[in-house]
Amino acid sequence: MIFIERSLEEFSNILGSKSATPGGGSVSALAGALGADLISMVCSLSIGNDKYKTSENLIKESLEKAQILSKSLLKRVDLDSEAFNRVMAAFRMPKETEQEKKARSAEIQAGFKEAVQSPLAIASECLEVLQLAKNLIGKFNTNAMSDFGVAALQAHAGLEGAVMNVRINLPSIRDEQFVKETNHTVTHYLEEGSAIRDEVHTYVQEN
Amino acid sequence: MIFIERSLEEFSNILGSKSATPGGGSVSALAGALGADLISMVCSLSIGNDKYKTSENLIKESLEKAQILSKSLLKRVDLDSEAFNRVMAAFRMPKETEQEKKARSAEIQAGFKEAVQSPLAIASECLEVLQLAKNLIGKFNTNAMSDFGVAALQAHAGLEGAVMNVRINLPSIRDEQFVKETNHTVTHYLEEGSAIRDEVHTYVQEN
Repeated sequence: MIFIERSLEEFSNILGSKSATPGGGSVSALAGALGADLISMVCSLSIGNDKYKTSENLIKESLEKAQILSKSLLKRVDLDSEAFNRVMAAFRMPKETEQEKKARSAEIQAGFKEAVQSPLAIASECLEVLQLAKNLIGKFNTNAMSDFGVAALQAHAGLEGAVMNVRINLPSIRDEQFVKETNHTVTHYLEEGSAIRDEVHTYVQEN
Repeated sequence: MIFIERSLEEFSNILGSKSATPGGGSVSALAGALGADLISMVCSLSIGNDKYKTSENLIKESLEKAQILSKSLLKRVDLDSEAFNRVMAAFRMPKETEQEKKARSAEIQAGFKEAVQSPLAIASECLEVLQLAKNLIGKFNTNAMSDFGVAALQAHAGLEGAVMNVRINLPSIRDEQFVKETNHTVTHYLEEGSAIRDEVHTYVQEN
């Protein structure tokens, strides 16, 4: 099912149902996409306005990047609901003989490692949206101040939600090095993302 | 334009455009609705499971409330984009004579007071979603743990975004009592909402 072709109303209904997908991962990707869109809106409302002429190059560049991030994150709304297909299929593999058990276990492990790539990518792109916001502080049309603030809130909620989806699956992975590195990566994402979120929040409140 | 009938893809495109609506207010309402839907999903995945039989009444009640909140918040996605119509119309009123100036100013003030009711209601309903989450801690199907966590993140981002949209408009309102009371209300919302968000976050990480 291609969720992003559904209306907001339909998506909301499907999300609330018993079906395991879409779930929190897809919603986090959507939050990131909407954050990117609000950055695009803020940029679009600033371009062509003489007051922001000195930062017009940055604004145009940010708009372009925000549009690419929005498209990519929207795709991840759908992709995330497929992320665990391989794990699920692996769990259904036969486990009678020792050989089957081994093959099944290896496939489950490979599936989990692959599956966490989806929320990892969502987290990374949400952080990129926050980085766009950081660079735009003080350089855009302040009529869109609360849209700018909400952009950062959404991207940050997407980042945190995606990290939650990464971390919840790490205990299932036996490769300690992989777990350690992934934990390190998401901790770094969260630290940088939360710092930007707070910086934007303070800026919006003071202006 | 009825935004919630648009597909996620179309909504994302319109949001990123130069048009002032939809903006951060509508996105905050949507975040709240998606948070409510994830609560519904968590409840739906718990009902009928013997493990959660002792809390089945609470779960069913929460499901019902979450569905009502989702519907209401989705409506606010559209309503919020109309919230400032009265203010905008008031700004276009004639301002030649003293009498016209007075009438225009009074209408602008009335318009602003009315306009902040929209993000205030979004904030209040997002807080209600968070309250549902709080009551469900430890009482639902933990297979949906990260969906539960993302529900709280979304509702909290919706709450914060809505409060941002309230606060940004308060300096335009001259009625000091109204401003004071509204500020008090949203401060209370944020305090309670952030405490629940943190409680859910800790619970998800520790389980």
